[in-house]
Order: sequence, then structure tokens, then C-alpha cells
Amino acid sequence: MASNTIGQVIRCKDIKLIRTDTTLDLSQKAEKAAVAWEAGKPLVIEEVEVAPPQAMEVRLKILFTSLCHTDVYFWEAKGQTPLFPRIFGHEAGGIVESVGEGVTDLKPGDHVLPVFTGECKECRHCKSEESNMCDLLRINTDRGVMLNDGKSRFSINGQPIYHFVGTSTFSEYTVVHVGCVAKINPAAPLDKICVLSCGISTGLGATLNVAKPGKGSTVAIFGLGAVGLAVSVFPSLLCITLLFQFVLPLNLKPPVTILHSQAAEGARIAGASRIIGVDLNSKRFNEAKKFGVTEFVNPKDHDKPVQEVLSKMTDGGVDRSVECTGSINAMIAAYECVHDGWGVAVLVGVPNKDDAFKTHPVNVLNERTLKGTFFGNYKPRSDLPLVVEKYMNKELELEKFITHEVPFSEINKAFEYMLRGDSLRCVIRMDA
Amino acid sequence: MASNTIGQVIRCKDIKLIRTDTTLDLSQKAEKAAVAWEAGKPLVIEEVEVAPPQAMEVRLKILFTSLCHTDVYFWEAKGQTPLFPRIFGHEAGGIVESVGEGVTDLKPGDHVLPVFTGECKECRHCKSEESNMCDLLRINTDRGVMLNDGKSRFSINGQPIYHFVGTSTFSEYTVVHVGCVAKINPAAPLDKICVLSCGISTGLGATLNVAKPGKGSTVAIFGLGAVGLAVSVFPSLLCITLLFQFVLPLNLKPPVTILHSQAAEGARIAGASRIIGVDLNSKRFNEAKKFGVTEFVNPKDHDKPVQEVLSKMTDGGVDRSVECTGSINAMIAAYECVHDGWGVAVLVGVPNKDDAFKTHPVNVLNERTLKGTFFGNYKPRSDLPLVVEKYMNKELELEKFITHEVPFSEINKAFEYMLRGDSLRCVIRMDA
Ligand SMILES: NC(=O)c1ccc[n+]([C@@H]2O[C@H](COP(=O)([O-])OP(=O)(O)OC[C@H]3O[C@@H](n4cnc5c(N)ncnc54)[C@H](O)[C@@H]3O)[C@@H](O)[C@H]2O)c1
Ligand SMILES: NC(=O)c1ccc[n+]([C@@H]2O[C@H](COP(=O)([O-])OP(=O)(O)OC[C@H]3O[C@@H](n4cnc5c(N)ncnc54)[C@H](O)[C@@H]3O)[C@@H](O)[C@H]2O)c1
Ligand SMILES: [Zn+2]
Ligand SMILES: [Zn+2]
Ligand SMILES: [Zn+2]
Ligand SMILES: [Zn+2]
Repeated sequence: MASNTIGQVIRCKDIKLIRTDTTLDLSQKAEKAAVAWEAGKPLVIEEVEVAPPQAMEVRLKILFTSLCHTDVYFWEAKGQTPLFPRIFGHEAGGIVESVGEGVTDLKPGDHVLPVFTGECKECRHCKSEESNMCDLLRINTDRGVMLNDGKSRFSINGQPIYHFVGTSTFSEYTVVHVGCVAKINPAAPLDKICVLSCGISTGLGATLNVAKPGKGSTVAIFGLGAVGLAVSVFPSLLCITLLFQFVLPLNLKPPVTILHSQAAEGARIAGASRIIGVDLNSKRFNEAKKFGVTEFVNPKDHDKPVQEVLSKMTDGGVDRSVECTGSINAMIAAYECVHDGWGVAVLVGVPNKDDAFKTHPVNVLNERTLKGTFFGNYKPRSDLPLVVEKYMNKELELEKFITHEVPFSEINKAFEYMLRGDSLRCVIRMDA
Repeated sequence: MASNTIGQVIRCKDIKLIRTDTTLDLSQKAEKAAVAWEAGKPLVIEEVEVAPPQAMEVRLKILFTSLCHTDVYFWEAKGQTPLFPRIFGHEAGGIVESVGEGVTDLKPGDHVLPVFTGECKECRHCKSEESNMCDLLRINTDRGVMLNDGKSRFSINGQPIYHFVGTSTFSEYTVVHVGCVAKINPAAPLDKICVLSCGISTGLGATLNVAKPGKGSTVAIFGLGAVGLAVSVFPSLLCITLLFQFVLPLNLKPPVTILHSQAAEGARIAGASRIIGVDLNSKRFNEAKKFGVTEFVNPKDHDKPVQEVLSKMTDGGVDRSVECTGSINAMIAAYECVHDGWGVAVLVGVPNKDDAFKTHPVNVLNERTLKGTFFGNYKPRSDLPLVVEKYMNKELELEKFITHEVPFSEINKAFEYMLRGDSLRCVIRMDA
């Protein structure tokens, strides 16, 4: 697929005709972006010039993007370094419009998910089986420019607009380093799998790759947003495994719908796993049941610290905990609520700049393990296409994470939904 | 072996005739103990009555004991709960004198090592492969009495003298819960293997069972006392493996002396592993070379925090760190000096009551792992006999850890040597 925008600055007056199929017509150039001019102020849809991709960069046409809490933190810029004007957004699906010098892995028309953390495939991290913290392309929330020339690819009348985590997907076109782009199955519906570009993969990987609960484990999840509820998918599958092992005939493969809608039920019948959801927002509890969460604790309902409540509920502590809140109190509680001897706590939430993780060293000595993860330890280019295949094979349901959908022109509603705690994921349609 | 002291309170005027061979004559009863009357004051050798063992207890004749820094902390009682008068000591070798009701695993005459943390073999921890934090018998530094009746077995003219971590080995006889006693090969020399009863096994297990450095890893050891230097044994064996793999003919089995004296040399030749020792006491550095330590850092020689020094020396951080100091600053440095993505820090040192482990949560998010361990995650009854066999098979050298030896009457010298940083282990001979 060729396009006459290749190599040109994209600048256009009107939003048009962007469709999700591969016959996408890029001669209808369009470039609107939602610009955050100031911390906490509504985004403004502006006409933005997007420079062509430089060496090892690609320019993407974004078709769908969704809002993750990390965008909200840096937009609010409370406890984070403020950098404005900026184009936020990092959870998205799109199509390659053009590629810069040296790019051989991608070509115009490829379906892709941009990712906030990259994979250069050359550094010690990329070569290590344990790490996805690429030396070159790891998440950097304070940098608002491209690596190649230290400049932004976005501008309005010559004024540069900063990038966010190398993705800036709240824009019809964006420029991304090739190492931050996963090429995926073109048959996968971008309006669904866009949520795999950050939150859902992060939660899923935090359990599958990092916490690794064993069969019959008790797992606490702090924060029942999309990330936290994605965490619950794996432990609830474990319960189902037990259900089918003990209760149902061995050769009957569970239909996928049971895997999802009845996971909590499975846990109960098997008497095996407990998945305890912890959230300050009690509205989240009903929704969470659909994701396999079996018990709920709202820290506000208790006088004692929530780690003590959990420890009491579980005779000494949970086997695994995963923190998906961004609150330092929740991070400490998630650590202190795991069982001594074998408990593992995994931090996922993005903390404030000045937060301090503080605990008595005896909690460490008592043989608890503390870990953290970005993007669930997935390597974006190598692993994310396989996570997309899980969705294609119906091993992973994404629809239930997408609670809202808005046209690009109403992007500020997505912020409202998240701030009110109403949405899990709100998908923003760029063509509407 | 029968003894007419069985079932009797032991009380005696003079120290006599205790030999390390199995023809030990217990009719020559003797019971002197080194009592700590006050925090930080020299111990006083006193005549102490030792009550017979109750249900699930055994009375041991201690033949050799050595001083570990944990004794010193609780004797100094700075930053620890003071409990006096008390009989300290937890690293020792001895022989069972008599057993209480219900004890079937041990009989008079068995050679044993008492351990400060126990193994009931019944609880969830004892049944778990991951933990040695026995619910019943885990270390408790604040309890000065036996579990069975909440009373002490030691008294002087009716005044109870408190126990320490269930062992109180600075006494010719002591009473210990059967779950805190490892029965070992009677051919093993107690004057050497007594040091396996705490420090050396702890350091060895901290690497073998917890930090688990891979071949070619860089390991930092904070604190080059006996515990820290035992940590170095395993990584230095890894280097040797490489040495023999790459440099020497494959079928030549390395003589044991090379394994030990040339471990550092091996690391250098193989160009593989680096073992970086960190200590405030520069005297420790020369000794440490014998244990395979290849580089040294004294935090006092640097203006910037030692974690930054190490990070710079190692291009981003060490692969593994093990903290064996008891200093909260060293604990934090040991965590912050491991490489992001894959680094693992293991805390071993015993902290003060009011210490706080404090780090920025982004250090966690950056995929570092924090762990802690008591007794190197060994289960004392199941695993310690096998560690003794490592010594018997010459896979582990203990002699070089024993830098001093004193008769029981001069036990206070052992404290002086440790406080001056002169000794690794000072073995105290009870019969002298
Ligand atoms: N490490 C990573 O790679 C990565 C990737 C994506 C998101 N994140 C972070 O994960 C977190 C969750 O993201 P999300 O999009 O699911 O957000 P979300 O707002 O949808 O969900 C967060 C939930 O946490 C709850 N919460 C807040 N403080 C709490 C507390 N003290 N105790 C219990 N619950 C509390 C909120 O009520 C909310 O339901 C955010 O911090 C986000 O920045 C990290
Ligand atoms: N977790 C366990 O099961 C266990 C078992 C045994 C001992 N311990 C603890 O391990 C530690 C070491 O015991 P040991 O008997 O080898 O003690 P030791 O006194 O022989 O050695 C400790 C060393 O640490 C050094 N040190 C102190 N503060 C330091 C700092 N801030 N930075 C660098 N070096 C520092 C000292 O100079 C000394 O050389 C103690 O805290 C002890 O209580 C723990
Ligand atoms: Zn995100
Ligand atoms: Zn890389
Ligand atoms: Zn000790
Ligand atoms: Zn037990």
C-alpha cells in the first residue's frame, strides 16, 4: 500500500474516511490531535503538523485509542513532572502510514500496536530472558521528544508539542520508534485489541510472567480497574482448571464462555482458589465478579490497615498480591499482606515522583518477595503479537473490558469516566 | 549411652573432663553458664541449674559454641528489646544428654547442632518447599522462655535466667525444643562443624537457595564477616567451574585446595564472575580474597552512596547482592545496587527494631527483586545434616572461617574480637 503522504508533513483541515479495513485511503490526509495545553485542563482538538518519520521511526495512522490511568496521572501532573503542551495516549491500534530510513521490519499498511516501552532487540535487556526494560527504548515519562534528534515531530504553527512515552496516540497520525511498534495479525479487530497495547497485557503478564500463582493459590488484587481485572484472568483460569480436574469429566474441554463468565463460580466449586479484590470504589465490585474475583475488601470499611484485614481473612496472608492502583499505600499494603515464607507481591501501579516505599526490614527477612513490572514483563515486539493471538483463539476475552466508546471529538468524556471510576476502558474512535 | 543425670536438675561446682569423643562420661556432671546480667556488660560464668527437658524437649551437653553477630546485637540491646538476665549463644555443637516425653527422633549420645529456628515438620511452612519459617518454632528473639510451659529451664537460686532464640548455647548444658535440633553424622568434628549451626549455613544458603546467581554473574556482598564470606563460596565455585571448563582439560577434577585458595584467581582467568565485597572495615579485605572475593569497596572511601559506586563499576548494577551487615543503610544500598530488569537482592542481616527499609517505588517497578532469608532457607532438621556432609566430603572448607579459639572461661574475648572486627568466627571450647 503506497500513500502520497509518505515523506510529507501531514497537515489537514478535516477528519475523514478512516476505516479499519486494509483498503484505507491515505490520500485523504487528516491530522487532528487532542492537545493537553495545561495540567488538568480539557484536551483541545487541534490541527497539528506531523513531521515525517526519521531514521528508525514509523508514522502511524491511529484508528482506535483508549485511555489508561497513566495518561491521566501525567495529564493531571500532580506528583509527576509537568510537560506541556503535550499529546497523551499510549493504548492504541493503527496502521503504518510510512517508515523512516533503516526500517525493514515494517511497511506501510501493516497493522500495529504502539507500546510505551520498546524492544531494540540488541541490548542486554532485550537479549535477556528475564527483562523487558530495553536500555534504548524503556518507558521514559519525562522525555517529550524523539530519540533520533531530541525534537518533537508534532507542531502547531511551528510551536513544538511534546510527545508522551514515545507513542502520543491521541492523534490521527503519530511518529513512533520502530522498536515501540508490534506488528500484529491484520485480521485482528483493532477496535478491540487496541486495549492490549497497554493495560490488559500489563495485568495479564503481571500474573502469568511475574506473580505466577500456583494452583489453588489465594491472590489479592489491589485496584479493580482494567489492569487489575486483567490480573484476575489467569488465577481464575487456574480455578477453572481445578474445576474441570475435580468436578467434570477429564476429557471435556471447557467452552470458552464458561472460562470467563463462570470463573468465580468455578473457584467456589473447586474450593481451590480465592481471588480477593481490593478497591476504594465499591462500584467496582459487581463488575469484578465477571472477571473471577471471589471476595471484596474496601479498605474504607475497616478501621485497621487493609494488610491486616487480608492477613486475618487468609490465615496469615495471601500467596500472591498484585498492586494496580498507583497509590503508595496500596503498594505497601500489597507487600505486607503476602504470606511470610513464600508470598510474592508484584507492583504495577505508577507511583508519584516523591513517593517512598517503606516497610520494616523484618517483613523482608521473613521470606516475602517483592517484584515490580512494566508491561507485565512482555517484550512488546516479540510477545505482544502472541497475546493478540490469544484473543483471536478465544483464550482471552477483551469485550468485557471495553465499557465505553466515544468519538475522538468527545475524548474528554473518557477522562471523566475514568476519574469518576465508571469505566474500565473507554475506546476512542478516531474516525468519528 | 545412659547417664545418671537424666531426669535430674543439673547443678555442679566444677567444670570437668568433657571430651569430644563418644566415650563422654556424663557422670562427671558440670554446669557452668555465661550469664549476661545487663546489656553490654561482660558475661559472668555462673553456676546454673538446668531443669530436665519437658515434653518434646531435649537437654544437650554443649561441647563447642561460637559467637555470631546476632548474639552481640541482643547482648548490646541497642535497638533491640532488652531481656536480662539471659544466656546467649546459638551457634554450637553438642551431644544429647537426655530427652523429654514424646521425643523419638533423638536419644542420649546423638551428635547434634542446635538451631535458632526450628522445623516442626507439621505446619504449612514445614510442608512447603519454599519456606523454612516454621509456624511453631521460627526464630523469636523476644521470647526468653520455653514454649511448653512458658518458663525458663535455667535458674540461679530460684531466679529464672532467660533463654535466647531457644538455644542458649553459652552453657555447658541447655534445653532445646526437639524441632530445633539437627542430628548429624557422629564422625563430624564438632569443633569445626559447630559454625554450621548458624552463620556459615546462613551465608551458603542465601546464595545457593535464594540469590541463585547464574554462571558468570556479578555478585555484591555487603559485610565480609563469616556470614558474608560464606555467601562468596558458591559464586566462587561458579567461577572455578568456568575455569575448569575453559582453561583446563575437561577430565581433570580440581583438587579441593585449588577450589578454595585459587577461587579469585579462577574468576579472573575465566573472565567470568566478579564478587565484589563491601565493608566499612578495610581489614576485612585481605581475608576476603581467600574466599573468592575479587574486588572491594569501602563505602567510607567514596563521596557518593555506595549503590551508585557499584552501579558505575558494573555498568548499571550487579546481578545479585546479599546483605550480611544488619545495617539498614547497607540493606537499602544492597537493593538499589542490583541491575534493573533482572537483579535480585537478598537481605540476611538482623535489623534494629525501629529500622525502616525505604526506597523509591520506581526501583521496584524497574523489575528488581527483593528477598530475605533466615538460615539461608535451609530447613534445620532436614537440610543441615546434608550441609555437614558437604564438609565431610571436602566440598566445603570450614577451617578458614575459624580465626580464633578461646576457652569458655574467656568467652568475653570472643565478644571483643567481633566488636573490633578482628575475628570471623571464634570457637569457644566448653571443656577448657
Ligand atoms: N507497570 C505498568 O506497565 C503499567 C501499565 C499500565 C498501567 N499501569 C498503572 O496501573 C494502575 C492501574 O491502571 P488502570 O488503568 O487499571 O486504572 P483505573 O483507574 O482504571 O483503576 C485503578 C483502580 O484502583 C483503585 N484504587 C486507587 N487507590 C486505591 C487504594 N489505595 N486502594 C485500593 N484501590 C485503589 C481505584 O478506585 C480504581 O478502581 C495505574 O497506576 C496505572 O498507571 C502500569
Ligand atoms: N538471617 C539470618 O538467618 C542470620 C543468621 C546469622 C547472622 N545473621 C546476621 O548477619 C549479619 C552478619 O553476621 P556476622 O556474624 O557475619 O557479623 P560480623 O560482625 O562478623 O560481620 C558483619 C560485617 O559487616 C560490616 N558492616 C557493618 N555495617 C556495614 C555497612 N553499613 N556497610 C558495609 N559493611 C558493614 C562489618 O564491618 C562486619 O565486617 C548480622 O546482622 C547477623 O545478625 C543473620
Ligand atoms: Zn497504560
Ligand atoms: Zn533493547
Ligand atoms: Zn547467628
Ligand atoms: Zn513447622
